[in-house]
Amino acid sequence: MGAAMITRFDQIAIDLPRPRNPSPNSAAAVQELLGGKFGEMSTFMNYAFQSFNFRGRSKMRPFYDLIANIAAEEFSHIEIVSYTINLLLTGATKRGSDPTATPLASALDARNSYHFIASGQQALPMDSQGNFWTGQHVFSSGNLKLDLLHNFFLECGARANKIRVYEMVDDPTARAMVGFLLVRGGVHIVAYAKALEKLTGVDVGKLLPIPDISNKRFPEAKKHEDSGLHRILYQFSPNDYTEFNQIWNGEHPEDGSELSVQPASNEGATPPDLDEEPQLTAPLGPDIDHQMFADVAAKLGDDVKRRSARKRAKTAASRPRR
Amino acid sequence: MGAAMITRFDQIAIDLPRPRNPSPNSAAAVQELLGGKFGEMSTFMNYAFQSFNFRGRSKMRPFYDLIANIAAEEFSHIEIVSYTINLLLTGATKRGSDPTATPLASALDARNSYHFIASGQQALPMDSQGNFWTGQHVFSSGNLKLDLLHNFFLECGARANKIRVYEMVDDPTARAMVGFLLVRGGVHIVAYAKALEKLTGVDVGKLLPIPDISNKRFPEAKKHEDSGLHRILYQFSPNDYTEFNQIWNGEHPEDGSELSVQPASNEGATPPDLDEEPQLTAPLGPDIDHQMFADVAAKLGDDVKRRSARKRAKTAASRPRR
Amino acid sequence: MGAAMITRFDQIAIDLPRPRNPSPNSAAAVQELLGGKFGEMSTFMNYAFQSFNFRGRSKMRPFYDLIANIAAEEFSHIEIVSYTINLLLTGATKRGSDPTATPLASALDARNSYHFIASGQQALPMDSQGNFWTGQHVFSSGNLKLDLLHNFFLECGARANKIRVYEMVDDPTARAMVGFLLVRGGVHIVAYAKALEKLTGVDVGKLLPIPDISNKRFPEAKKHEDSGLHRILYQFSPNDYTEFNQIWNGEHPEDGSELSVQPASNEGATPPDLDEEPQLTAPLGPDIDHQMFADVAAKLGDDVKRRSARKRAKTAASRPRR
Amino acid sequence: MGAAMITRFDQIAIDLPRPRNPSPNSAAAVQELLGGKFGEMSTFMNYAFQSFNFRGRSKMRPFYDLIANIAAEEFSHIEIVSYTINLLLTGATKRGSDPTATPLASALDARNSYHFIASGQQALPMDSQGNFWTGQHVFSSGNLKLDLLHNFFLECGARANKIRVYEMVDDPTARAMVGFLLVRGGVHIVAYAKALEKLTGVDVGKLLPIPDISNKRFPEAKKHEDSGLHRILYQFSPNDYTEFNQIWNGEHPEDGSELSVQPASNEGATPPDLDEEPQLTAPLGPDIDHQMFADVAAKLGDDVKRRSARKRAKTAASRPRR
Amino acid sequence: MGAAMITRFDQIAIDLPRPRNPSPNSAAAVQELLGGKFGEMSTFMNYAFQSFNFRGRSKMRPFYDLIANIAAEEFSHIEIVSYTINLLLTGATKRGSDPTATPLASALDARNSYHFIASGQQALPMDSQGNFWTGQHVFSSGNLKLDLLHNFFLECGARANKIRVYEMVDDPTARAMVGFLLVRGGVHIVAYAKALEKLTGVDVGKLLPIPDISNKRFPEAKKHEDSGLHRILYQFSPNDYTEFNQIWNGEHPEDGSELSVQPASNEGATPPDLDEEPQLTAPLGPDIDHQMFADVAAKLGDDVKRRSARKRAKTAASRPRR
Amino acid sequence: MGAAMITRFDQIAIDLPRPRNPSPNSAAAVQELLGGKFGEMSTFMNYAFQSFNFRGRSKMRPFYDLIANIAAEEFSHIEIVSYTINLLLTGATKRGSDPTATPLASALDARNSYHFIASGQQALPMDSQGNFWTGQHVFSSGNLKLDLLHNFFLECGARANKIRVYEMVDDPTARAMVGFLLVRGGVHIVAYAKALEKLTGVDVGKLLPIPDISNKRFPEAKKHEDSGLHRILYQFSPNDYTEFNQIWNGEHPEDGSELSVQPASNEGATPPDLDEEPQLTAPLGPDIDHQMFADVAAKLGDDVKRRSARKRAKTAASRPRR
Repeated sequence: MGAAMITRFDQIAIDLPRPRNPSPNSAAAVQELLGGKFGEMSTFMNYAFQSFNFRGRSKMRPFYDLIANIAAEEFSHIEIVSYTINLLLTGATKRGSDPTATPLASALDARNSYHFIASGQQALPMDSQGNFWTGQHVFSSGNLKLDLLHNFFLECGARANKIRVYEMVDDPTARAMVGFLLVRGGVHIVAYAKALEKLTGVDVGKLLPIPDISNKRFPEAKKHEDSGLHRILYQFSPNDYTEFNQIWNGEHPEDGSELSVQPASNEGATPPDLDEEPQLTAPLGPDIDHQMFADVAAKLGDDVKRRSARKRAKTAASRPRR
Repeated sequence: MGAAMITRFDQIAIDLPRPRNPSPNSAAAVQELLGGKFGEMSTFMNYAFQSFNFRGRSKMRPFYDLIANIAAEEFSHIEIVSYTINLLLTGATKRGSDPTATPLASALDARNSYHFIASGQQALPMDSQGNFWTGQHVFSSGNLKLDLLHNFFLECGARANKIRVYEMVDDPTARAMVGFLLVRGGVHIVAYAKALEKLTGVDVGKLLPIPDISNKRFPEAKKHEDSGLHRILYQFSPNDYTEFNQIWNGEHPEDGSELSVQPASNEGATPPDLDEEPQLTAPLGPDIDHQMFADVAAKLGDDVKRRSARKRAKTAASRPRR
Repeated sequence: MGAAMITRFDQIAIDLPRPRNPSPNSAAAVQELLGGKFGEMSTFMNYAFQSFNFRGRSKMRPFYDLIANIAAEEFSHIEIVSYTINLLLTGATKRGSDPTATPLASALDARNSYHFIASGQQALPMDSQGNFWTGQHVFSSGNLKLDLLHNFFLECGARANKIRVYEMVDDPTARAMVGFLLVRGGVHIVAYAKALEKLTGVDVGKLLPIPDISNKRFPEAKKHEDSGLHRILYQFSPNDYTEFNQIWNGEHPEDGSELSVQPASNEGATPPDLDEEPQLTAPLGPDIDHQMFADVAAKLGDDVKRRSARKRAKTAASRPRR
Repeated sequence: MGAAMITRFDQIAIDLPRPRNPSPNSAAAVQELLGGKFGEMSTFMNYAFQSFNFRGRSKMRPFYDLIANIAAEEFSHIEIVSYTINLLLTGATKRGSDPTATPLASALDARNSYHFIASGQQALPMDSQGNFWTGQHVFSSGNLKLDLLHNFFLECGARANKIRVYEMVDDPTARAMVGFLLVRGGVHIVAYAKALEKLTGVDVGKLLPIPDISNKRFPEAKKHEDSGLHRILYQFSPNDYTEFNQIWNGEHPEDGSELSVQPASNEGATPPDLDEEPQLTAPLGPDIDHQMFADVAAKLGDDVKRRSARKRAKTAASRPRR
Repeated sequence: MGAAMITRFDQIAIDLPRPRNPSPNSAAAVQELLGGKFGEMSTFMNYAFQSFNFRGRSKMRPFYDLIANIAAEEFSHIEIVSYTINLLLTGATKRGSDPTATPLASALDARNSYHFIASGQQALPMDSQGNFWTGQHVFSSGNLKLDLLHNFFLECGARANKIRVYEMVDDPTARAMVGFLLVRGGVHIVAYAKALEKLTGVDVGKLLPIPDISNKRFPEAKKHEDSGLHRILYQFSPNDYTEFNQIWNGEHPEDGSELSVQPASNEGATPPDLDEEPQLTAPLGPDIDHQMFADVAAKLGDDVKRRSARKRAKTAASRPRR
Repeated sequence: MGAAMITRFDQIAIDLPRPRNPSPNSAAAVQELLGGKFGEMSTFMNYAFQSFNFRGRSKMRPFYDLIANIAAEEFSHIEIVSYTINLLLTGATKRGSDPTATPLASALDARNSYHFIASGQQALPMDSQGNFWTGQHVFSSGNLKLDLLHNFFLECGARANKIRVYEMVDDPTARAMVGFLLVRGGVHIVAYAKALEKLTGVDVGKLLPIPDISNKRFPEAKKHEDSGLHRILYQFSPNDYTEFNQIWNGEHPEDGSELSVQPASNEGATPPDLDEEPQLTAPLGPDIDHQMFADVAAKLGDDVKRRSARKRAKTAASRPRR
């Protein structure tokens, strides 16, 4: 009844540097990597549904485990892209509670008006043109070979999009995020290539890189590859999905390094504490009931104390488990 | 680098009874609860994005923790609805590899043709009319009061849809799933009512039930409420999101029982092993390369042995945390 | 500040006979005439926006008045189509408050599941396939000749759809509605033909009927034409939009009868009192708070008395104008 | 046969000041209030359909009357937003009939190209990103409590959007319109809160304002509230919908003032006479057939004379009712 | 000025047998192969746009020629699928001009109402659920390797859909069409596999067949493969696109037969003369102006004579080229 | 089996001058003429489907031939608009293979981000707001009179859009294209007017021009009309579709010149050789496998030689027919 299908941790994949400046149009471009046809919503949802839907899994366990495990990683990717967008939008308009000061004037010419009207300078599951992600982007034919081919293509398409957004945006937050995702998405490309190879004997990995430009040309990706991050598929479950190691093994098709499986760790980065935007009443407006707010604040004060105490204690505690 | 933002478990929320019969039109109806405007994709994605997007969270931690934690539970809901659909579709067409036998003839009059053409008799993120879920269903204004009001409304709308699908479908798989989700969704309704109350002092919970028909009238829900499931908000994280207990406390607005927080357990149900549908080449077609298949199968054979061994060992092992 | 741009009357255009039987699939077909590309939402919204948008109207007043006045009539058309749908859906499922009786079982095979899940057996702005009406169907180029040509084409397309729905559905409610709308839509076709003729001298009316089948072949339309309804353009304003009489004059292009302008009357039909559908908790569910409900009911009891009294007094009272 | 369901008046809700400058991007932002998910198309259509669809209305008359009457007011809101957009677009490009002068050059960088290609610098039912309004935004579950909760949420969401558009645009036309609609929309928020309270006893109004920023902070709204406009629900029918006064009564939840019902008056403002945009052939192009145009113009000349005469006579005439 | 970019021939790809019976639901299923995500609209438009868009073609001519030439073949595929749909819909309703006979009654329960309302029992660019084809299905990244991978995947997905529609529909018209397209689509799969191989050296063809079921299992495809149709890529231009022979050569990856290039012939099949459907006024209604119709008919009479004469002369004449 | 339904030629309709400068926002505006509701995708697909769908064609041959033949011309129009877009986008970003140089920085503020992320600075079937073309824009009612009226309206709407895009963009490439299409689209307007006239006797052509501004005011169109291009309907088939000459005859309604039919010639213009955009890896990225690339290049080298030789020989060769 009360079992967890997922457990969640209040952390993000990497430390995100703060943007040099707020940049609404950069945030708008980055949306493609979140809610575009080839964005992280697509990879997350494709693999989640393929894992729910996998028929005959008892006979084909390693393939099921591979897809199900990668799905788990993708959740963290919609999260990290969302935080990047949020950071790029933080402070993008004039702070304050007086609406007559036209605090959102700068939004008038911004690429994506939903960031300022529908959201409080925050990410939404839409693409760089403000078109919303749709379930039509999920492919789940039930035929394993076709689904794997799809996933391989999807990841290559996603890679092309990441490269292009990188080339549009020179903001360090965005580039740190894209660099990291080029590497992790690269792992998924290889994983699906390996799966196709196990199934058919064709060395699909030799097609890589697609597009034909190496991750090594992106400093923010290269640093991760230099430390071997492109060789590791993490296991996002304490005990389950273990058989994908029958697929994720051998050599990396691009640099010949040895592939390895590792358990996911509990050493994530702290999520940014996103600043308030009072002109957007985010999170509260100036006319919140004052007595009520004071009461809530009092409790929160207590919490802050408790939280600090807990944090100190936490370092020793184990998180996922192992 | 390799930290988990979520860990995933190869289990589902409840044991799903097998359908009395395959029922494509029941599966089509159940899709509304997955990919409809008020389906589980909507609840999952609304709370996930609101958690990524929460501004000023250090001051408003309990609200952030509440939303983030409920998001984690919702993932398991898209999963359980998907499995229900998959079970209802299993065996819905004539099994076999000879296409000239028109094995999918019965699909011609089924409500949703995508189940048979786009998927291999499997769930997709679409609604009961075959329209795909869209990111437009995500609301994240950044204003806490408005977002909470939205979530309260969303859950009530979702409840109405569940009730109506229950009234359309008398299949035991579907009803077991709906009964369970009526209770868990009911917990989320109360959670957002409590959050609004903490913020404003208005006892929103007194509006319940919306629609004005009690969960107790649904035997598959009542049995869970009898065991107290409607009073418990599980913590889907070993150490994080702990402060939602400042919101989830006091009395249940409908029956006055005491609310409590409990850690999510590791006692989920085993996911159904979904049967193969060879006529849909799901997962493999009859002309898979035989030598290759034999090699893969050999490995799989080894795996099966290892797996059985591991399973025996597993009962003693702890899973998420505790 | 408190002026009316429209006033509304609690009446409908014609008396609608009750359906012989509930007929969900007929209701689904009729939706095309409401929310389809050529449905009444399209005619209403096209003319409403063209009237808001009319540039240079002081010089071209009769054309502005024509479009603005027809827009007002179209509101009553979305209403009458909606009531037709609602009547066809009334009683379509098993009445009662016990969900375990699977009261909506018959909905499982109905064409449009939204009627039973999203609405309470009621109309929504969607078409016969359950696709929603979209503002993309509004054409407002600002060029008068082109807008008039559009409107002429739109009405002809709408007429074709009405004919085809008539041919699909033999229910008397639907046919009474379609017969009436064939005549009133026919008036609008002629009105736009006349407007094009005034502007260009081309006798566009000679193209009629489009499609080339006369309204006289539809008994439910013929009876209205026999009484001259196809010759009259009503003025839906006490004092405004008077100059369209410069366009609506001369002979009817199909039968040569004399066109005339008349003020809209206050003799509409009483809207059907739509039955409750308790299984859909429409309007209330079985677990409405009883004390509260009793209080409200008490007031309503008083109201019923007052209402009856008022009704008797009302016959003498004047309504719109005259 | 020829009865009016609505009568229309050639007037608008308030006098709109002229914009300081044409401002295409302001017009684009204001579109959100017309065709966005929370725009006036949504409020108008939600209440119109809920009124058509109301089951069991004889027992629940005050609620039906409330919704039906508010629907009537919303028509004037799509109108006033459209006029605001049209005024902001008037003169936005270079006037003249020579296409080689690239008169629309400035449109190349404007936010919304449809304003210049699909329309003649005019409003369309779309949002601030140029996505069209869709019938999917209409909610009509048939359950009264749920529909009222929806309407309450919808109006709060609409209020948030109005506030944000106000903060983006400092043009006096837009702000006059938004200020007025904040007050009238505020009336609708309270109306639905009161309706929920009558039905359930919960003082939902105490949640207000949502978002938590008062209308009093917006000078263009405050002036209307100072004159009491926020306390009045107008009756948009001479004799019908009278029973909503059983709901709209008591104190205003924000300032405790006494609520009152008043008949809609006939003292609307004169609609702006929108300038021609010859470069868009709006309303006519330079090559209109000259003889034909002269003939039409002659008639129009006569009309202008007649119209002036009539206008003088009109002051004495009564309009809607009373 | 007056040059042809394409020339068109009044013929279709193969002789289509007449359906055993009209079958609206079969027609609805076949729509997936026309307007679905993986339908012929997608293949046609993908390759057409990739050919318009090909950058650096002078250096990569064989690839450009391949894509441009296949695009030309795809036009004939949207045509042949459309004719199949039209034949399946011919006679599906009661013939006659009297609307009161409810001639479209059978359409009420048909899967796709657009076939009877929007079209005259005819094909439209939509899929099996009546959702319209969208340009979002076109992929044109500009990167050759990625575009080829996409095309390879697209064709495999299209193949899966064809197989499933074949399994749903046992009508001989549909199966003749699908059998033929399985072979021709199979040629395109191999073509893109060969192109990828030329570019990268990876023998992608070894992945085939995807899904892993051979065309030989489909008698209507097998007969074409027996005659070698799967080995031939036709040149759809008298003199252009000649260099694709550098890609289309060597062995067929599935049966090792020798690939060859051949000029397209002028020996197409005669398009079916689609019967009139008078109840749909297709092509004319009963009230077409009689004198006018007689005049047109007289001319047509003359034409028929001329046409017969010409037909006799035509056999000797050359058509496309050679 | 191997017959051509179309043959394709590697040429375009007119010589396109090079843009003065790359202009992404001009390219974005021109997209309306490709993928907008009234763009060339709409004209092409409307006539293509109407030709596939024509019922009773043996009796109404000239109308069928007219529509089928115009469809063939429209293919060349989607091509020429695409090339215009591609030329306007060529060089729009900084050339080079180093992504860290932020080569796409200028794209950040461009109107349409898909041009830089989804495509390689290339055309896609979308409109000026980046919304994709949809099959919903295809109208095919089966009633000839209604379909012809639609086509007449569609072409007039398309003409309005062309005029407005001309007025937005002063680039010579765009204006050459628009000027040409104004004339050819004008031919189609007249063709459908003539067809309506043959069918009904109404001289619909007298409505022209719609909008009321003459093509003669556009120098890039006037030059073509001066040479008579507006009087000629080309036959896009060697031997088929010959009977449209029964419709296309008599006088041009605007200038009284004599209409004529001519065979399409083989003297098209050479398609622009679109420059590579290495920063978009279009067509290849910097890390293409070098040995492989050398091998391909060697073959291509041979090809270039062969191609030059062939080109010299080609002038004498006949292309389509004649």
